[in-house]
Amino acid sequence: MGDGMKQITVGIVGGTGYTGVELLRILSRHPNVQVRYLTSRAEAGRAVSEIFPSLRSVSQLHFCDMSDALFDEMAQTCDLVFFATPHGVAMTHAPSLVNSGVKVIDLGADFRLQSLDEFANWYGMTHSCPELLAQAVYGLPEVNREKIAKAALIANPGCYPTTAILGLKPVIDAEKQLGNVVDGRIIIDAKSGISGAGRQGKIAISYAEVADNFSAYGVSGHRHTPEIAQGLNEILAAVFPKKIRFVPHLVPMIRGMFSTIHVPLTDTGSKVDWQSYFASSYQHEYFVDVLPSGVLPDTRSVKASNKLRIAIDQQADMLTILVVQDNLVKGAAGQAVQNMNIMFGFDELTALDLVPITP
Amino acid sequence: MGDGMKQITVGIVGGTGYTGVELLRILSRHPNVQVRYLTSRAEAGRAVSEIFPSLRSVSQLHFCDMSDALFDEMAQTCDLVFFATPHGVAMTHAPSLVNSGVKVIDLGADFRLQSLDEFANWYGMTHSCPELLAQAVYGLPEVNREKIAKAALIANPGCYPTTAILGLKPVIDAEKQLGNVVDGRIIIDAKSGISGAGRQGKIAISYAEVADNFSAYGVSGHRHTPEIAQGLNEILAAVFPKKIRFVPHLVPMIRGMFSTIHVPLTDTGSKVDWQSYFASSYQHEYFVDVLPSGVLPDTRSVKASNKLRIAIDQQADMLTILVVQDNLVKGAAGQAVQNMNIMFGFDELTALDLVPITP
Amino acid sequence: MGDGMKQITVGIVGGTGYTGVELLRILSRHPNVQVRYLTSRAEAGRAVSEIFPSLRSVSQLHFCDMSDALFDEMAQTCDLVFFATPHGVAMTHAPSLVNSGVKVIDLGADFRLQSLDEFANWYGMTHSCPELLAQAVYGLPEVNREKIAKAALIANPGCYPTTAILGLKPVIDAEKQLGNVVDGRIIIDAKSGISGAGRQGKIAISYAEVADNFSAYGVSGHRHTPEIAQGLNEILAAVFPKKIRFVPHLVPMIRGMFSTIHVPLTDTGSKVDWQSYFASSYQHEYFVDVLPSGVLPDTRSVKASNKLRIAIDQQADMLTILVVQDNLVKGAAGQAVQNMNIMFGFDELTALDLVPITP
Amino acid sequence: MGDGMKQITVGIVGGTGYTGVELLRILSRHPNVQVRYLTSRAEAGRAVSEIFPSLRSVSQLHFCDMSDALFDEMAQTCDLVFFATPHGVAMTHAPSLVNSGVKVIDLGADFRLQSLDEFANWYGMTHSCPELLAQAVYGLPEVNREKIAKAALIANPGCYPTTAILGLKPVIDAEKQLGNVVDGRIIIDAKSGISGAGRQGKIAISYAEVADNFSAYGVSGHRHTPEIAQGLNEILAAVFPKKIRFVPHLVPMIRGMFSTIHVPLTDTGSKVDWQSYFASSYQHEYFVDVLPSGVLPDTRSVKASNKLRIAIDQQADMLTILVVQDNLVKGAAGQAVQNMNIMFGFDELTALDLVPITP
Repeated sequence: MGDGMKQITVGIVGGTGYTGVELLRILSRHPNVQVRYLTSRAEAGRAVSEIFPSLRSVSQLHFCDMSDALFDEMAQTCDLVFFATPHGVAMTHAPSLVNSGVKVIDLGADFRLQSLDEFANWYGMTHSCPELLAQAVYGLPEVNREKIAKAALIANPGCYPTTAILGLKPVIDAEKQLGNVVDGRIIIDAKSGISGAGRQGKIAISYAEVADNFSAYGVSGHRHTPEIAQGLNEILAAVFPKKIRFVPHLVPMIRGMFSTIHVPLTDTGSKVDWQSYFASSYQHEYFVDVLPSGVLPDTRSVKASNKLRIAIDQQADMLTILVVQDNLVKGAAGQAVQNMNIMFGFDELTALDLVPITP
Repeated sequence: MGDGMKQITVGIVGGTGYTGVELLRILSRHPNVQVRYLTSRAEAGRAVSEIFPSLRSVSQLHFCDMSDALFDEMAQTCDLVFFATPHGVAMTHAPSLVNSGVKVIDLGADFRLQSLDEFANWYGMTHSCPELLAQAVYGLPEVNREKIAKAALIANPGCYPTTAILGLKPVIDAEKQLGNVVDGRIIIDAKSGISGAGRQGKIAISYAEVADNFSAYGVSGHRHTPEIAQGLNEILAAVFPKKIRFVPHLVPMIRGMFSTIHVPLTDTGSKVDWQSYFASSYQHEYFVDVLPSGVLPDTRSVKASNKLRIAIDQQADMLTILVVQDNLVKGAAGQAVQNMNIMFGFDELTALDLVPITP
Repeated sequence: MGDGMKQITVGIVGGTGYTGVELLRILSRHPNVQVRYLTSRAEAGRAVSEIFPSLRSVSQLHFCDMSDALFDEMAQTCDLVFFATPHGVAMTHAPSLVNSGVKVIDLGADFRLQSLDEFANWYGMTHSCPELLAQAVYGLPEVNREKIAKAALIANPGCYPTTAILGLKPVIDAEKQLGNVVDGRIIIDAKSGISGAGRQGKIAISYAEVADNFSAYGVSGHRHTPEIAQGLNEILAAVFPKKIRFVPHLVPMIRGMFSTIHVPLTDTGSKVDWQSYFASSYQHEYFVDVLPSGVLPDTRSVKASNKLRIAIDQQADMLTILVVQDNLVKGAAGQAVQNMNIMFGFDELTALDLVPITP
Repeated sequence: MGDGMKQITVGIVGGTGYTGVELLRILSRHPNVQVRYLTSRAEAGRAVSEIFPSLRSVSQLHFCDMSDALFDEMAQTCDLVFFATPHGVAMTHAPSLVNSGVKVIDLGADFRLQSLDEFANWYGMTHSCPELLAQAVYGLPEVNREKIAKAALIANPGCYPTTAILGLKPVIDAEKQLGNVVDGRIIIDAKSGISGAGRQGKIAISYAEVADNFSAYGVSGHRHTPEIAQGLNEILAAVFPKKIRFVPHLVPMIRGMFSTIHVPLTDTGSKVDWQSYFASSYQHEYFVDVLPSGVLPDTRSVKASNKLRIAIDQQADMLTILVVQDNLVKGAAGQAVQNMNIMFGFDELTALDLVPITP
């Protein structure tokens, strides 16, 4: 029996958020995966299709409570557990799962920042399992594929960092290869659809507040800033001594993320043919699409798919990199499944070859 | 000094909802009104412009807590108090205000239903001041102007009932004048923008839930059904023995209400020239606009204004009445100010001659 | 080699509309279908992925011009041709294709109305091939599955009629079975997302005109009215002597259709347990989902899928039927593929088992 | 009779666009203005309220054709003519009006760029009246108030340049006062609602294309770039030798513009207390509101009003300036009326003290 027939059993902790339902949508069509557990404290006992009628006839699962007994059972029966939870949850439960040989993918933030100080600073709590954190692999396949294949624990990247790191990877490659191509500070001016704020009852994300409206938030500091910096400085480059300025905004749309990255170039940098450089950088990556010169991206072109598209505009001494993705797919659940496919030796595209929805 | 110069002092109880901020928007440009009190339990002490930055440089008010002392003070100093509160609040505080000679306009539901049983049935509480309820005037100026002028307490109509009663008034007039024009049941298929659900943190009205989505609610029973029935049967007609079916829907837009009223006609009814009948019914009403034959309304044409527009489509034995209004203005705060103008002898259009916003 | 392996070659006439791109999205994942031709007068020669970047890496097709030579070639090489064109196009080209043994599915309106007078009246042109019209099968699988399986030419239903006919089928079945269950006129108050108006440059459907706005249209007469009447009176019942009133509205959302059907009941009708009646009517239909009692539908629950969901609310003498579908899928391209699957003996669910997108 | 009673007669050339209808909305409540002419080639003869039902009972005007005779008549009878037209129209007709003593405010682009080469380069036509261009005053009141008061011809600023120039004015003042505060390139990452694209029938701005979508445009070059550069370099500073990078984006909302301006600071620049600097810069400007430290703006807070709000975020060596306005008001029609008020000696706030619409 080939890999294509291998079956794994999966649990999802935190199944009532948008990341959870998106995992269910994708995994319901994955031939190698059976989702057996789906937790929710608030909805324990209810059918998932009661909360998400879109899943009627798709999933027969019921939410179960997040008890110790459940984690024990998952430790015995699961090959993989996804955490689609607020920070603090995964680091509590991951150690015993990993010790039992269960692989873990955390879609939350518990294992993204390697610096304990940065974690404490940005998330307001002390990390409870630094030794496990040290083993965690940052799950950005286009950067870390080999490590992911061997990992026991994956920190699934944040949505903004995915666009920033993949958008800047060729620049940093050039910086390493050619030296000193970037002149000064890189500006990441990012825009996200509102599903990025999660499924929750807050006035600030209610329809009448955010529809027909555009705003900035986290301008003086956002948790994804250190994650982007770590991605650029540590994961991609030994030392990438450039400063970053990251400013996120909220767009009145459901899904979609658009990062406009402004890179001032040195003379060396301005001589690079960036269109070609980017195209060749990603020529073997199915999920990263470098658009032809002159074509600009929109978020709709990736809606409900795992694609991330990049466009390049090069002027005399200024490189503008435009990156789009669906924040819930390549920015969250899709990337998690991509990591899963790599970890278990499935074809990386399995269940992920989703055609974007237009219009 | 003429009426134009008369100044009144006003309090608003419940100032953090959309009806409250809309009252402030309108009253801020009313030459005869000074809003002195604005209450909010949650935001007491904060400037209103902190919560609603749109009111920076418009209102210097701060929220005050809803204490007994405050109500005592308002009883001494106010000419009028608006309640923009959930049901149950106004009926607690209105009696002492009215006894002190302060006029009250309740934008909530406490004084809309004259039947104590219906009130208890639909609002889940016993009415605490039935004797005051008996004095309350239903504040629909185009129907009840003379009573409003003399009222001490106004029940400001619900948004749906405003469209239904004004949309059907000429039909009921014809029923009274000609006899038996309606054949069977009247269907009121209504659609509302999401601000009608109020300013609150609930998953069900969060952007990602309701954007790009259309739904029905309250299909098996909605609180506005008895209010519409009361309006048609008791206020307009001695007896209007026709059944009503009211079904509300939620539209992914901020403001706006659209009621499609389907009226089956008898032979007598089908001989009426309804376009003329409606046009002459409302020819002297500034805030009710009967559109020319063949013109269909949209909610945008009344956005942010106190206008209610009606279009008529007449087929062999079927009359379709299309009614639009801004649910927060003619459906709530604007109508409340219209009632205030009538109660205090101001020109009825004062501060209400708002030009709709297009686009 | 089983049916599962059978391969067919397909052409799509009119590939730049939303129905065309939706056909491509669905067919790109159909294991038995190769789309070889895709026409567009305006975009001839361009890659389809230039117009629809969502199809980059999904389709390598280029638009070809709609010439006689092309139709000759398709007559030789295609098993099936879809027309996703304005009325008048399919009836010009279908006869020679059908004569050559090519099956045709017209997503436009040329073969929907069997009455030549009605066609001329509503579409403003004389039908050019009445003999072919007489052979056309109305492609509503849940009603006409056996005829579809043998058809050479399918009239794919309009979006509104799909909701109205499937929503009312159990009522008409009851009418036939029990006699006289409906008392008077049936009101179909329908609401559509804006993609239903097609992909075109018109002020009336531009964003700033229709966003945050709700309107009615076609109130005095809409082309889908005779199609619904034909569906109810001729296809479903020998004679269904009930009048219909159909009023469509435009909702500020991209996809989605919601029909609220108001059915007054006779005494006989009010004794039927409609929830059970509907549930058993559709228990074997995968794409029609009768919701449990008390659950109300929203359009989001079917977004980008081929599902049509129905909810029932029954009151004393009033039945309310709420129907939702994605107008571009079950209301157009999905239903066309469902018809194709039936015509060619493929599993009816092939490529159509799409999970709705939430949020 | 004081200035308050002075009456002027006004014509509007190009009355069917969003800028035109917004001018009508504002001027309809201006006590000193009578709009007598409103032109439209396409709609000549029709009532303005047929095209814009929001103006029923507000304006009785009919569109008139744009003939020579009309311009002769306006030259005789008007005090002021607004051009709300595509480029090329105003420069054809303004000279004879100005020669007749009629003041002109061009809301289009004909008189914005003082460089004939830049004009030809960006607008694809030779300027037809360079001598008049030389007299044109750039109508940004907060910068040019005294020149505006004396001008015969006003170039009303573009929407993006209004945010960029007012957002950067204090920085340039500091540059002039303190020397060398900006370190390198200023990035203007701007986002506009879709009404900025005008009222026209184009697929690219149709609802189904732009709703739930976010895109960039004009990345490789936009007509407002030279206008911003001119504003910073020539109007504000003798020489402001800093480079600008301007990238505009399209937001799925009707009205609103949000410019995020990223300014890298030198050591000198980082020592400035920018919050105070901005606050004192604009302390006497009613229409420019510098938000308190820590408060971030959203476009809703200025919707349908003439306010422009600015927030400042200062980090070690990076200043972020966030600017919001309603693109149709302070970014177009409102600013034009503000210019008019200054030119004719009316109180600058007349008809412009509009309360933003929330929600």
